[in-house]
Order: sequence, then C-alpha cells, then structure tokens
Amino acid sequence: MIRKSDKPLQITEVSLRDGSHAVAHQFTESQIRSAVRALDEAGVHNIEVSHGDGLGGSTLQYGRSLIDEMKLIEAAVEESKQSRIAVLLLPGIGTVHELKQAHSLGASLVRVATHVTEADVSAQHLHMARELGMEAIGFLMMSHSAPVAKLVEQAKLMESYGAEAVYVTDSAGALLPHQVKERIEALRGSLSIEIGFHAHNNLSLAVANTLVAIEEGATRIDGSVRCLGAGAGNTQTEVLVAVLQKMGINTGIDLYRMMDLAEHIIGPMLHRPQEILTGSLVMGYAGVYSSFLLHAERAGKRFGIDSRDILVELGRRGIIGGQEDMILDVAAELAHKSKSEVL
Amino acid sequence: MIRKSDKPLQITEVSLRDGSHAVAHQFTESQIRSAVRALDEAGVHNIEVSHGDGLGGSTLQYGRSLIDEMKLIEAAVEESKQSRIAVLLLPGIGTVHELKQAHSLGASLVRVATHVTEADVSAQHLHMARELGMEAIGFLMMSHSAPVAKLVEQAKLMESYGAEAVYVTDSAGALLPHQVKERIEALRGSLSIEIGFHAHNNLSLAVANTLVAIEEGATRIDGSVRCLGAGAGNTQTEVLVAVLQKMGINTGIDLYRMMDLAEHIIGPMLHRPQEILTGSLVMGYAGVYSSFLLHAERAGKRFGIDSRDILVELGRRGIIGGQEDMILDVAAELAHKSKSEVL
Repeated sequence: MIRKSDKPLQITEVSLRDGSHAVAHQFTESQIRSAVRALDEAGVHNIEVSHGDGLGGSTLQYGRSLIDEMKLIEAAVEESKQSRIAVLLLPGIGTVHELKQAHSLGASLVRVATHVTEADVSAQHLHMARELGMEAIGFLMMSHSAPVAKLVEQAKLMESYGAEAVYVTDSAGALLPHQVKERIEALRGSLSIEIGFHAHNNLSLAVANTLVAIEEGATRIDGSVRCLGAGAGNTQTEVLVAVLQKMGINTGIDLYRMMDLAEHIIGPMLHRPQEILTGSLVMGYAGVYSSFLLHAERAGKRFGIDSRDILVELGRRGIIGGQEDMILDVAAELAHKSKSEVL
Repeated sequence: MIRKSDKPLQITEVSLRDGSHAVAHQFTESQIRSAVRALDEAGVHNIEVSHGDGLGGSTLQYGRSLIDEMKLIEAAVEESKQSRIAVLLLPGIGTVHELKQAHSLGASLVRVATHVTEADVSAQHLHMARELGMEAIGFLMMSHSAPVAKLVEQAKLMESYGAEAVYVTDSAGALLPHQVKERIEALRGSLSIEIGFHAHNNLSLAVANTLVAIEEGATRIDGSVRCLGAGAGNTQTEVLVAVLQKMGINTGIDLYRMMDLAEHIIGPMLHRPQEILTGSLVMGYAGVYSSFLLHAERAGKRFGIDSRDILVELGRRGIIGGQEDMILDVAAELAHKSKSEVL
C-alpha cells in the first residue's frame, strides 16, 4: 500500500469509551486499570476513556456509569506510561466544565464530536481544549449522511476553531469503501490538518474501510480490541495491526501483546460477542442511529409493516437524532402507500 | 461498482458444508432441512452440503459426522425447490464413488478441491462430474500461497479437465485486497470459464475481498450465514447481500429473509460465535493451515519459543498440509537462532 501521507499513524483505542455502550457503562476501575496497563505496554498511542456518549454522559437518558468517568480517567492516567489518555466530548452532553476536570486529571487529548452538519457547536470546546494545552480533535459523526462538500465545509469549520485533526466518523457503519475514499480524498485536498477515520463494523467493512482511509492519507485511526464498541463494534484493533504489519506498515504496536490482551484482558469484559446481527446490519444498511431501532419496531407493529422498511426510509430521508417524532409519520406514510399498492 | 463481467452473480451458501467444521460435524437432519428450506425460499442460488472436508470426510482422521452426509444431501435435495444442491470433493478423501452417489441423490453441482499447486489430481473427478451431467467446478485451496502465475497455470489445468468455473479459495483467510485483485485479474485474462471466490474472515477482510473479486469479474461467490465456517468463518452471506444491494447490485436474494434465517435458523446452530480470536488471526497473518496451530504450540513449548513465530516461519516457507514433520525442524532452528542472538 502506498500511503498518501508520510506522517506516522496514530492509533486510538476506543474500547474503553465506545465499548462502554456494549457493557451498559458498567466498566470497573480495575478493568480500566488492567486494560490501560496492557494497551500501554503494547505501544498503543492513545487510549480513550469516557462514558460511551462522552464526558457527562452518565445520566438517566444515556445510561448511568457504574463508576464515575473522572475516577476512570484518573486511573487510566495513573496506569499509562507512554500512551496518551483521550476523552470524548459531545457538546450539549458534556461541557467545558468536565473538559477542564478531565484535563486536570491528566487527559491530554479531546475529541469534540458533533453531528456531521453541526460543527459550529464545537467551537467553544475546541478553543478551550487548545487553551488548556490539550490536543484538540474534531469528530464528525454520521459522516455517511452528508454530501462530501458538506463534510468538507464542516471539517474546515472545525479546523478554523483550532482542531489539529478532524475525523470522518462512520457512526452507523454505513460507509462503503468508495465512499470512504472520496471523503478522505476530499478532506486531504481541503485541510492542512491531519485526517482521522473511525469505523463501525455493521457491514463487516471496518478493517477494509480503514485501509482505504489510510491509503488516502488518514493518519489518525480508531480501533477497538475485540470490536468492543456500539452496534457491531469498531475496527478490531489487533486485526488491523496484523494486517498493517503484513502490508509492511509499522505502527510501532506489538502484535503479540495485542493478541494476548485481546484474549486475556478485553475478552473477559465482553457481555456478548460482537457479531453482526440483524439490528446492526439494518443500521449499517439503512444508515441510521441505533436508537431508531426500537422506535421503528414499535411503529412497525402499530402500522403492520416491516420495521426495516421504516429504517431504510428514515435513512433515505436523512432523519437524525432528535427527530424521532418523524418515525411514526414515516411509518404511517409507508403503511398508507403499501395499502394503496394492494388496492 | 463497475463489474468486469456481465454474467449474473451466483451465490453459494457454504454454512452447511464449511460450517460443518464449526459444529464438529454434528449437523442433524432437521437442521439441514430447515436451513435449506429457508435458504431456498430466500433465493440463494446454490447450497453446499457435505462433510467439512468434503464427501467421504466422515472419518476418525477428519472427524465423524453425526449423520451420514448422503442422508443430509438427500434431505437437502428434498427440501429445495429452486436452489441447486452442491457438494465438495477433495480427491484423496472423496472418490468418484461418493460423487456418483451424491449425484444419484440429486446433487447437481460439485466443487473439486485441491491444493493450489495440485490441480492435476482433480482431472478424474472433474471429468466424471461432466459425464454425470453435473456442473463441474474447480476449487484451488490456499490460493494465497502460490505465485499468481502458478495459480493461473493450475486454473488452466482445471479448465482443461472440463471445469466450468474455477475458484480462488482463500482457505487461511490470508489474502489482502490487492492480492485478490491481482489473482482474479490474472485469471480473467487467461480463462474462458467463470471465476469464483471463496473467502475466510481471519483478517476481517472477507466481505471487502469479495467485493474486490466481484469488481474484477468473479461471478461465483461463496458465503456463509452468520460466518458459520472453519476458523473465523467465511464471507457473511446476509451482510454481503445487504452490501451488494446497497451498491445497486441485485443478487435476486431476499435480504430480509436472509436476516431472518440468520437470526432464527442458522444462529441457533452455532456452537460458539464466529469472532476473530488469536488462533484464526495468527492463521490469517501467517497464512497457514489451522491444523498447524496445535503442532506449533507443542513445538513452541518444547523449544521455549513463541508458537506464533513458528507459524509465521512456516507460512514464509510455504509449508503445506502433510509436511507437519517440518514444524519441529523449524522450531528447533528458530530456538537455535534466538539463542545465538542472545549470546
């Protein structure tokens, strides 16, 4: 593979943050400590530790964490010798207050995440991160759902707020390889900062999409050991490291240590294996939020139609989080349409 | 995606054959019946039913089947209305005797499988298949381990024996996307018959490699629902169907039915989830047979070295099945080398 960037790759392990969803936010302090110690020894560059929905996510709405994330961040910083500890922040859920607290505990990197069309809400937090001396990174979620030009526009906004890298975040695992290529390519032509890629494995394409992103010049790559993450999970870090090594791309990460910690440290944390089941497959196929699944099932039952048709239609219309009231409307419309077709 | 062949895609479901390994050859007749019925209703073109190691594989050496495969083939033929029932035959394990028997029960398609360098042993069986009026297909296993020119030479041999299609079979899940591309491309330039691709998911690249193969002109594609297959399993059929549909490529297969049978029919058959664990990852990374894993572990213990180093060296040397006595030699050599390096 010929990479279109000569910067070294930086891998960010997200199992202790995105994986929080997969364990219903029940990480214990000792789990975080042993995972960080092992990841650090294996040479992983960055380790993200936060509630699954970012700083401040431990609420009734998003799911209460077993252990306060600040305690987990503190523990992670204590255990890490070389790896940097990262945090995630979704403006509106987390605030600059939590950001300052995480920074004071030793987190040195923050990813400020917004919906792909709403980069403007990240300004304050990216500025504050820079002010604090943290590395400030933009994270454009549901990147599949916006046209490429829109994605570029929003990434440039984040750059203007001080972001040192911007991520294409495939939250629904909905991107196809050629769509990753065109997105990273377009950003490389428009930004002067680094480009990142965060994949989900709903369509079993996370590793392959990540390779495409790396080839096109992405240098910040997210992975999760054993795919421990929301939905079908993320790019399986230890597999990615093996594939890159096989391709002659050195990440500086120790493959055998990664295999060992996948088996002995992260494996036992899994509540269930990260297979691709109907729910996550539909999510990737339709390109919708996982939170829509339950709503669509209810609406499907009510109107006597297949919930998957509702999800596909929601994806087609680009309905986003916060617009859940649209689900019933779409279901009613589809039901009406299918009735007309029968008549 | 622009496909380099205008022939329709033919999907062959291998969970009831390759998946036999994953369930220790314990398929029951009623499992086969319900799976075939559902796959047939979903519109899957071909369904392979045999012992994991092909016809005649039910032995002490390869593992005894719970139910005689001829009984399973007969049941599959009975349940299928449109799907063709395929069988696998490895010359040396299966013979023309079993082939005739499978044919008399209604199997209409045989894949004759040899190591990538040993196509010559398939002549008799491919000829016989044609004589019987079955569709005769060549299956070149461990295709990653031979140079492209060798693969082409061997595929041409199979074509000369009457094969109507030849498969690139990535038995160890060791191929990278660019290696799939160069292999399918080379075959397309040299054969006048159809080209097939059979992937394993050891490096989490099965679906992506399959897309590359289809783009380059492969028209015969193997998949297994829920990845039910040896090692990390195969290209997950229902995921592939979703991805192709998303790309605008119609397989004629009903996606929702595939999702439903994945959840309700095949899912309950799984003895364990098809995750990518150390064993299968090392296999894909090193490009070796799964049967080497245990041997390498024993040799590693005996010589005090990491079994993974042995496997990588075996892959580098292209050691194949039947050469297991080399494993101790390689281990001894590596141990000697590492001792010299310390001194």
